[in-house]
Amino acid sequence: MKQKIDPWKSFEIKDYNKIMKDFGVEKIDLKKLQKKNIYFTRGLVFGHKDLQKILEAKKKKKPFAMMTGLMPSGKFHLGHKVIADLMIYFQELGAECYVAVADIESYLTRDISLEEARKAAIEEYLANYVALGLDLKKTKFYFQSSGSKEYMNLSKFVSKKTTFNELKSIYGDLTPEKVTSVFIQVADILHPQLSENGGSKPVVVPVGVDQLPHINLTRDIANRMKSNFVLPSATFIKIISGLKGGKMSSSDPNSAIFLSDSPAEVERKIKKYAFSGGRATLKEHQEKGGNPDIDVSFQYLKFFFEPNDEKLKEIEEKYRKGELLTGQLKEYTIKKINSFLKQHQKKLGRAKKKVKRYIK
Amino acid sequence: MKQKIDPWKSFEIKDYNKIMKDFGVEKIDLKKLQKKNIYFTRGLVFGHKDLQKILEAKKKKKPFAMMTGLMPSGKFHLGHKVIADLMIYFQELGAECYVAVADIESYLTRDISLEEARKAAIEEYLANYVALGLDLKKTKFYFQSSGSKEYMNLSKFVSKKTTFNELKSIYGDLTPEKVTSVFIQVADILHPQLSENGGSKPVVVPVGVDQLPHINLTRDIANRMKSNFVLPSATFIKIISGLKGGKMSSSDPNSAIFLSDSPAEVERKIKKYAFSGGRATLKEHQEKGGNPDIDVSFQYLKFFFEPNDEKLKEIEEKYRKGELLTGQLKEYTIKKINSFLKQHQKKLGRAKKKVKRYIK
Repeated sequence: MKQKIDPWKSFEIKDYNKIMKDFGVEKIDLKKLQKKNIYFTRGLVFGHKDLQKILEAKKKKKPFAMMTGLMPSGKFHLGHKVIADLMIYFQELGAECYVAVADIESYLTRDISLEEARKAAIEEYLANYVALGLDLKKTKFYFQSSGSKEYMNLSKFVSKKTTFNELKSIYGDLTPEKVTSVFIQVADILHPQLSENGGSKPVVVPVGVDQLPHINLTRDIANRMKSNFVLPSATFIKIISGLKGGKMSSSDPNSAIFLSDSPAEVERKIKKYAFSGGRATLKEHQEKGGNPDIDVSFQYLKFFFEPNDEKLKEIEEKYRKGELLTGQLKEYTIKKINSFLKQHQKKLGRAKKKVKRYIK
Repeated sequence: MKQKIDPWKSFEIKDYNKIMKDFGVEKIDLKKLQKKNIYFTRGLVFGHKDLQKILEAKKKKKPFAMMTGLMPSGKFHLGHKVIADLMIYFQELGAECYVAVADIESYLTRDISLEEARKAAIEEYLANYVALGLDLKKTKFYFQSSGSKEYMNLSKFVSKKTTFNELKSIYGDLTPEKVTSVFIQVADILHPQLSENGGSKPVVVPVGVDQLPHINLTRDIANRMKSNFVLPSATFIKIISGLKGGKMSSSDPNSAIFLSDSPAEVERKIKKYAFSGGRATLKEHQEKGGNPDIDVSFQYLKFFFEPNDEKLKEIEEKYRKGELLTGQLKEYTIKKINSFLKQHQKKLGRAKKKVKRYIK
């Protein structure tokens, strides 16, 4: 049976290969990437659709775009950082960048007012994007609540190109506000191809696996429209474990590392909460070794904080053999995170001012 | 059982009293109307909701509004004229007037392009409104595809205030484009109360009985929103028989009198198609009499073309007694229609120019 993916709920994925097969996701051919990135090389980005369209456009010097949406709820954490880094990755590859602030969606599905959403989007999300390296001048931001007429109308037109049976088979239980949100998302994904944005072109959307249904539906709808939309491309990110092993959540401060965390907070969270692949006793650990595959500190090093492949390999091997203890692994991780955050938080102050000047 | 009313299909209503009971529609108290109109006095408008709010606002010299939508499909016929006359009735009573051109809805539910819709709205509908007496300067027109941001967002926000169970119980079978249309309609009905239009106030919507579900849903949704919307008022119009007894349809030129018809067309249509309440033979007619209640010519005289109550009564009695023959009734009706259309078509030429100057 095909696993249902519900973008509004948290869920686990046990078998990414099955997801790839069920949802038509392809493996990324690293040899074809002109620019590498650890998200790709270390497998956090587990697959793609039509990424070759982007690479071809780049090769042929034709226009292509990157599109993403941000849900302005809660504080910016490591999960958000992945999306931001991929945005920057594609921007540096030469993509026009489009960012939708999902304020209508956050009102409909999370009861966040447009005013709160605006504040969070600007002060928390955009500021962090800029601090991470996004070039604001080459990025088109818009709020779902203040999009152009062409965009607003598209979010209604798309309703004509699907059925409730199709929507139910994709999303399971529906509510009117979920359906409205879905149509807005479809319009967001097609937004870079509106005539006001220069018309049809390849567009890549870097998304978490939870957004897979939106991508597939958008491609199907685009295909059914009397228009020249190029079916959007996407890269898909695995679910990143929260500190305690579950989901990262902005509403549980101990579930995630936030990019605004102080060194003491990072130390406390990693020591107290970071799920460990180590053994119950020192003796057992030294005898049987730890399991880096389920160890949150190791995962964070792998995907975020240890760019050096040799060093990472060494840590992994020592941990597996039981030579590296959980406490030591945590200490190293804390040091690496805090070193990154120190630099990042310096940039963040400047970035906030920049964003405020830019967005009226 | 409550009759389902489907705004997207034609249907018959056998018992208006039952509709009134089932849908909470009240009788119009003619004594309370400061200004009479044959649509009210002769019962074509069969009921209302909260009309007293409008009459009170008028009495207390507080602002109130009239709102209507037009579906820009096909040629302007007598059914459209009723709405137009009621718009003018409320405008002359002192209402601010709002008219939504339902171009998104006509695309979603009838596959009419925005361009076609725009042309039909301006050249056919608005021109006829003006020729019938609507004061363009005191009327706010807007296209659903070009409404303000506040309006566009409202059409999405309302999705949060209903459920699919409720929508199904009201409309029966749903499709995504119907649901989208419903939310746009709700936003249209609340549009005069947006902050950009001066905020909450009593608003009356003159509609055909087929639009009853939209009115009821809008009132329920308005009631559930954290806003100061006054629950909209409405007056409800009976289904007016087409020439052949069924529905008037823009797509069947022999089903209706269009306001652009030539005298010869009117003569041909009435003589050939107008459903008659007369008897099969002259002898039988003279013996048993005709039935004006089902006679389309008589109905048109009653609701449109014979303002003189005495004269109408005389025709009715003579027809019932068999003294007036079907041919004679038709001849009289043709004469009255053509006399009206002659005047109207003169005004229409000037009105078209006026509208084109007004709407860019």
